[in-house]
Formats: sequence, C-alpha cells, structure tokens
Amino acid sequence: MNLKKYENLKRENKDLINLNPLQTGGKLTGNAKKVLVEFGDGYAVYDLSPGLELMEVPLIKEFINEALPKFLGADIVRIILGAREGIFNVMHSITKPGDTILVDANRHYTTITAAERANLTVVEVPNSGEPEYKINAEDYEYLIKKHKPAMILLTYPDGNYGNLPDAKKLGAIAKRHQVPYLISGAYAVGRMPISMREIGADFIIGSSQKSMASSGSIGVLGMDKKWEKIMLRKSKRYPKIEIEFLGSELRGTAIATLMASFPAVAERVNNWGKEVEKVQWFSKEMEKLGLKQAGDKPHKHDLLFFKADPFYKISLKHSRGRFFLYHELKKRGITGIKPGLTKHFKISTYGIPKEKLQHVINAFKEILDK
Amino acid sequence: MNLKKYENLKRENKDLINLNPLQTGGKLTGNAKKVLVEFGDGYAVYDLSPGLELMEVPLIKEFINEALPKFLGADIVRIILGAREGIFNVMHSITKPGDTILVDANRHYTTITAAERANLTVVEVPNSGEPEYKINAEDYEYLIKKHKPAMILLTYPDGNYGNLPDAKKLGAIAKRHQVPYLISGAYAVGRMPISMREIGADFIIGSSQKSMASSGSIGVLGMDKKWEKIMLRKSKRYPKIEIEFLGSELRGTAIATLMASFPAVAERVNNWGKEVEKVQWFSKEMEKLGLKQAGDKPHKHDLLFFKADPFYKISLKHSRGRFFLYHELKKRGITGIKPGLTKHFKISTYGIPKEKLQHVINAFKEILDK
Repeated sequence: MNLKKYENLKRENKDLINLNPLQTGGKLTGNAKKVLVEFGDGYAVYDLSPGLELMEVPLIKEFINEALPKFLGADIVRIILGAREGIFNVMHSITKPGDTILVDANRHYTTITAAERANLTVVEVPNSGEPEYKINAEDYEYLIKKHKPAMILLTYPDGNYGNLPDAKKLGAIAKRHQVPYLISGAYAVGRMPISMREIGADFIIGSSQKSMASSGSIGVLGMDKKWEKIMLRKSKRYPKIEIEFLGSELRGTAIATLMASFPAVAERVNNWGKEVEKVQWFSKEMEKLGLKQAGDKPHKHDLLFFKADPFYKISLKHSRGRFFLYHELKKRGITGIKPGLTKHFKISTYGIPKEKLQHVINAFKEILDK
Repeated sequence: MNLKKYENLKRENKDLINLNPLQTGGKLTGNAKKVLVEFGDGYAVYDLSPGLELMEVPLIKEFINEALPKFLGADIVRIILGAREGIFNVMHSITKPGDTILVDANRHYTTITAAERANLTVVEVPNSGEPEYKINAEDYEYLIKKHKPAMILLTYPDGNYGNLPDAKKLGAIAKRHQVPYLISGAYAVGRMPISMREIGADFIIGSSQKSMASSGSIGVLGMDKKWEKIMLRKSKRYPKIEIEFLGSELRGTAIATLMASFPAVAERVNNWGKEVEKVQWFSKEMEKLGLKQAGDKPHKHDLLFFKADPFYKISLKHSRGRFFLYHELKKRGITGIKPGLTKHFKISTYGIPKEKLQHVINAFKEILDK
C-alpha cells in the first residue's frame, strides 16, 4: 500500500474570500499561528510548565478560572473537546436515561445525536416556518408544562438561518419552571457579546474552532455554580479528578491557539454592531439581485440563509448543472458555498471587510448577467 | 483585566534532549509540521474537499477504512478524541451502568475515571509488586470466573513501568470465557508493531499525540467487526450518523498531522528491534551508576522506570533539595524528568539517537560525581 499520498495534504481555496459559516470565525490570529507551530508536537503543552498538571499551570488556571468566566458571564468554565461533546457532557451529567428534554427545531443535528447518546427523548419546539423560521421563547412554556423536561436547550443563533431568539425571555420561563437551561452558542461565543448570567441560563457552550479563532477541536462550557457538584463530580479513587471530563480535556495543541487568540477575540466582540450593520447592508444588496433572505429580518447575525431562485433557474440549463455557481464564484476568488447548492445556501460575512463583500455582490451580479 | 499575557505562550525546553515518555513518540514529522500550518485555522479540514462530510473525503475515507485497519490489525477503525475518550466510547457502548469490569492494576488513572463516568464497578488484577510489577495474564481468569465482567482491559504497555504482559495469552482466555477484551495501547500503537487480530482482542486503542507523531488531542480505536452494530449504532433521526461518536470526531487540525505523519509512523515501527536494543543498553548503563530499573528485565519497551537512591541521597543535602536533578540535567541540555523527582522517575528513550543517550548517561554520571 502506498502511503505517501497521506503526506502532503493540500488545502484548497486558502487564499480566496471564504464565506463558509463554519470557517469565518475560526481563522487564527497571527499570535495563534505562532503558538500553533510552537506547540504543534503531541503533548507539547506539557512544556508550558513541566511537572504540573495542565490545569495547575498558573496561566492556564487563570485563563480558565478568571478570563473565560468573565467573558461568558458564567461562574465556572471548563474546556471541552467541541460543542457537541460539551452538550453531551451536560446531558450525561444532569439527566437520567429515559428523561425528556426540549430543544428548538432549528438546532444542529448533533444536539439530537448527543441526546440519543445519553438515551434521552427529545421534544422539539417548532419554528414559525417560512420565511422567518422563528423560535418563540413562549412556545417552550406550554411544552415545559406538558413534558416536564429534565432540561431545555436553545440554539443561539441557529446554524441555518442565523436567528437570534429571545434567549432572555426563555431564561425567565426556565427560572419560573425551575428547569435547567442550556444555551448552545457555537455561533455566538467569540463573535458577539453574550452573557450567560444576563440571559439567565444555567449553561452556555461555545465552539472555539468555529467562533474563537482557534484550531480545533475545542470549545468552552460555562455554567452556574449551582451545578458545580454535579458537573464537576469527583472520582472516588482520584479525589481531584473530574469524572465527566475524564481528568482533563486540555491535552491538545488547540488550547494554546485558543489562549493566544483570546485577547483579539475578547476585543472583536465589541465591534459586533459594525458586523450587524454590514450583514444588513449585504442582505439588502443580495435581495436587489432577486435573492430572498430567510430568517430574522432585519438580520441580527452574520450567518445568512438565502433562497436563490435566479441561480437555481440558471443551474437547470447550465452545462455544469448545479455545480456552476461554485465554479463561477471560485473563478472570481470566492468560496464557502457548498458545491452543488444553488436553490438556497448559507453564507457568513463575519470579519470580511466591506470592500471584499462588495466584490462578492458584484460577482453574484456578474454571474446572473452572464 | 490585561489579556495580553495569553498571547505569547512560550514553550520551555524545546531544544533540549527530551526524555518525557508523554512526548518522545509525539514529535511531528516535517510533513506534519507543514500541514499543521496549512490546516491550523478552525475547521480548515473542511477545505480538503469542500462540500463533503469529512468521512466522505476520499483520502480520509481510505485512510480510516483501509490504511489504519491494516496498521492496527483491526476490521474497523474510528478516530477518537484521545485514548481516554476512546476507552469511554467502548465502555459506554458495550456495558450497562452497574456492570463490573476487570482492568490491570498498572492501568492509567483515566481507565478508572472512564469507568466511573460509565457507572461501572472496577476490579483490578494486581501486579506482582516490587521489583517487576508484572501483570500475569493467568490472573485474569480466576477473576473472570468470579466477577463475570462485562469487559476486560489490558494496558499494553503500562505507562509507569513500560511492561509488556502476555496480551496474546489473555486473548485466548478472553475467547474461552467470551468476554470482550480491550487493549489500551497508548504507548504501543505507533511505536512498535502490534496487531489486535494476532493478540485476539476485540478493541485496540492508540494515542496519536503520544505515539503517532501527531498533534493532539486525537487517537485511534480499532475493533472487531462483530462490534459494528453496537459501536457504530446509528441515530434514529439521522440514519448515517454514529451516535457514540456524535457524528464525527474529525473536526480538528490533528487529523491532518496524523495523516501526514502516518507513512513515517508505519515505517518506524519496523525499527522497533533497534529501539529495544537501545533501551536495554541504556538501562544497563544506568544501573552501573547505582540506579535500579524496575519492571520487565531485560526491558522490552522504551519506557523505563528507575529507582534512583543515589540521587535521592544527594537531594537530602542539596541546596535546591529535590529539584536539583531537574536543574542539573537542564544545564546539560536534558529535560523530561518531572521536576522534584529524584527517588524514582520514568523516562523514554524512544527515537533518541544513541549518541544523545550516551550524553544523558554521562550527564547522570557527572551529576553523581559532583
């Protein structure tokens, strides 16, 4: 078997304008790139302070116990292996197999699979359907009364439409019914200001590789201190070890990039107003081309879902079929829309300068005119 | 709060001879360093083949479905988030809360915490005590009859003494009693030739950041195809999604480094004989200085445990106390022994050229003579 082919993986599209929502918030800062190389070897993070457990390294300890809780508006934070793994950590710790939980219908598929892994029954709070697909916080209340769920989860924003439901209102409902409340914030934490405490949630989860300018796979889990005994329950044999996190999830290279990017991330969330202005302008310009933006309007998040009938019509006649749009955009230095999609697609404008977005709009226009 | 301090993490000891067993097998190859930078951004692996699920990218698919199974002597392989997470994946899938399992007393602490996380009762197969700390495969049999365990686990080799028990004999015992058998091989897979099939195990786990020249956190889980339905059980809602792995654990940068290093790793296990020769020579030279090597003798693995009374005696009178050894070695360009340890310590000779090990021996001698 010739193994050489595994040696030189190439990254396509690296120098293009990338609109992929999975990627716009994950680009490393210059400092993160440096530590990536510095700590690239397996277990290199051990060298941050030889002989200490990673959680005991003063700089890491402070980062996790002070900087991150402040950033998330949480009492306690733990590093997780990814957003989906963190959702499972919570479900596995605070529910029992057979319990019912409530989640929004706009949730990522991994919310469902995490619940299945924890043997839970999932009830979904429906969205309002076309064209806004809104999740109304009030709709949770009836279902809370009906199902007495072991926890409720809200995706904020969701990864399809970039909708931001009224998380704070749901916080009040959760408090009234004393049901644990998790904010699944993979597209919020690190992009926009967000505070678990202000929302009134018990848990908040962020994806560092999606939205905190970090290498993956890594995320953050913030919680209210009332969950300390359950979430951080200790091993009987090793009284310092947290069972749910199998000791520590800090072993990889990603933590170094997360820390190195953090000052820039903590800073960039303050510019969220400008990002929102930009996305609203972008959405309007795209609608002028005959596309329809679904979801919240005016939009309040950089993740946009477009119904793109004009492009769909072209694809029906184009020699490259439904792949034409991907190729036409690539020719113009643009990537990030899934190859094969024309009828509808999602994109993110996060962190992309307005001039570049203007080029994107021009490109779409040019492709339409052609 | 001043966050700047998180920006420039420095790696100590980077250019020294590093004897830390956690690190000797995890050093990236030149190719892995290149892809590390190429795929450093969060979710950059998406660009390997835009639009495809990572498991569907042909090169990754082939790597996981052909190259790795062949390498591990397994039918099916999945990428895991780390060795401890993989052990939990198996326990969580094939046992029920309340079940009893058997593990060797030399196991890593995370074997215990993974079992606690899965609500299992753990019975330990004792080792033979000083000076060899041997695990005898036969000792499992009596305890299997007594406890009817839901699975048995053997650490091969263990991370304290580097002992290699008779895994194959245990394979025959496991078969006779029809009990699922997991090889916890964080210090084997990627360092030495090993075949799950030859051993007769049901599962094998490797740590890529410990022993496969990969960035962390990542590992490999090999299994017998008879476990497919249970380990790869699918979501009811998403029929292609594997619940236990929450969809996919391929999202990080580490997979690119694991693949890029793999040809070199597959090659280096063939030189295992030379590594063993080297470690036996090294152990003898160290014993000439008055140290005592614990564990298997002659030793069959690069991980060595020394009882080092001569250094302990010095530490009792030295102005730096028990930290003197760490500092004296560092002065001589050597690191990897935990600061503060003198009475006993573990080291690994893996991949370190004989001349450099000779320098290490000379350094120990010089420190003793001084």
